[in-house]
Amino acid sequence: MVQKKVTDRDNALFEAGIKLGALYHQFTGSPVNLNTVSSLEQAIQESISVQPYVEEISVKIDRDMLKSKLSNKFGYSELQGLMLKVKITVKYGSSKVKVGMEYNPDLNYPLMRIIETEEINV
Amino acid sequence: MVQKKVTDRDNALFEAGIKLGALYHQFTGSPVNLNTVSSLEQAIQESISVQPYVEEISVKIDRDMLKSKLSNKFGYSELQGLMLKVKITVKYGSSKVKVGMEYNPDLNYPLMRIIETEEINV
Amino acid sequence: MVQKKVTDRDNALFEAGIKLGALYHQFTGSPVNLNTVSSLEQAIQESISVQPYVEEISVKIDRDMLKSKLSNKFGYSELQGLMLKVKITVKYGSSKVKVGMEYNPDLNYPLMRIIETEEINV
Amino acid sequence: MVQKKVTDRDNALFEAGIKLGALYHQFTGSPVNLNTVSSLEQAIQESISVQPYVEEISVKIDRDMLKSKLSNKFGYSELQGLMLKVKITVKYGSSKVKVGMEYNPDLNYPLMRIIETEEINV
Repeated sequence: MVQKKVTDRDNALFEAGIKLGALYHQFTGSPVNLNTVSSLEQAIQESISVQPYVEEISVKIDRDMLKSKLSNKFGYSELQGLMLKVKITVKYGSSKVKVGMEYNPDLNYPLMRIIETEEINV
Repeated sequence: MVQKKVTDRDNALFEAGIKLGALYHQFTGSPVNLNTVSSLEQAIQESISVQPYVEEISVKIDRDMLKSKLSNKFGYSELQGLMLKVKITVKYGSSKVKVGMEYNPDLNYPLMRIIETEEINV
Repeated sequence: MVQKKVTDRDNALFEAGIKLGALYHQFTGSPVNLNTVSSLEQAIQESISVQPYVEEISVKIDRDMLKSKLSNKFGYSELQGLMLKVKITVKYGSSKVKVGMEYNPDLNYPLMRIIETEEINV
Repeated sequence: MVQKKVTDRDNALFEAGIKLGALYHQFTGSPVNLNTVSSLEQAIQESISVQPYVEEISVKIDRDMLKSKLSNKFGYSELQGLMLKVKITVKYGSSKVKVGMEYNPDLNYPLMRIIETEEINV
């Protein structure tokens, strides 16, 4: 067993995970249709952007997937995790990490993953 | 015991309640600060507007109450029920009802209530 | 236009709607599998039972539907509205109403509806 | 700029963050009182335990803090982040990390943090 000191990189990745988990479980379930999808995208993006250590965030809701879910009697759907494409850059001390969530058709799962990491000169 | 037929008025009030309960439990908890409060207001309003039988909806988040909650280290808050002022008009068949939610300081509670009801000529 | 006084029946139906909307948007999205479905059912039931005017509540999550959604790589699902079968009895003053939510296959929609209403001697 | 390979430790911390963010934003807002707090605790614990890579999880809701919030007319509260004390152990490949969330009175904030990390022989 090797216990290692917690680094900025560790904290950046931990914080990045928090943001994706928060976004997903706060906003999925929101009623949405093609007319309201833009305001929901923007609100999600701005909402998560106020959390600690977020440098950049982009949130896209897949219109085609949404369209395919509008078939119920009432012409709207709920925001589902599978519709979300998110990228978040988190900066913690000397570390900057980029993470994302995107529907993975092979797994049939909205997969969250680490996209890239870098050390910055501070 | 008198069992009465379910009327349009009954359904309108039932549906109006659903919308307020949905709005509250979908969106409270969303991270928010003074820069992002407008986009959150708009997204909540548009999101709930797509649900069945909603004719009109207005959503206001109390800026003063929000400001008073921004005191943590990180300069943001979560949307709390107490900050919400909502009015929704629901139309079901020949019945139109207006309901609302607003912080009641005496009860220290975000009180939901029926504001007015009317029968319309259809 | 006929403006009518708000009755106990009106309030009972309004309150009943609030509970269903709250339940749905609070708990859908919760991670769940066949081993944990019972504790989630119980927690939802107990949680909503503490809200004002709730007399009785039963919450069932459809195991077959859940089983059919466990096919992703990780062996769990999220609680979806379509899996829920809920009955709630609300009492407000002299009025008691029973409402429910259940998946309606024709509409492909988790339909909420008024099941019965009665006036009680108080 | 030094781009480093993504390690098991990185993924473990990222996944651990996801769980805490998910837990928080899924379950805060749930109606709760002293009679129902145990079933809510258990359901939260079991629900998050089904997510990928979770080895161990403990969820405690602070009864004293809950009691102090029961003062509204209706005798219940909502689950607030400040009431939660959570510990989660995540295992990803050769890395095991323990993270937690707990109310920090100095920051007046439900602080999430990395508690410890270890490399394991696999």
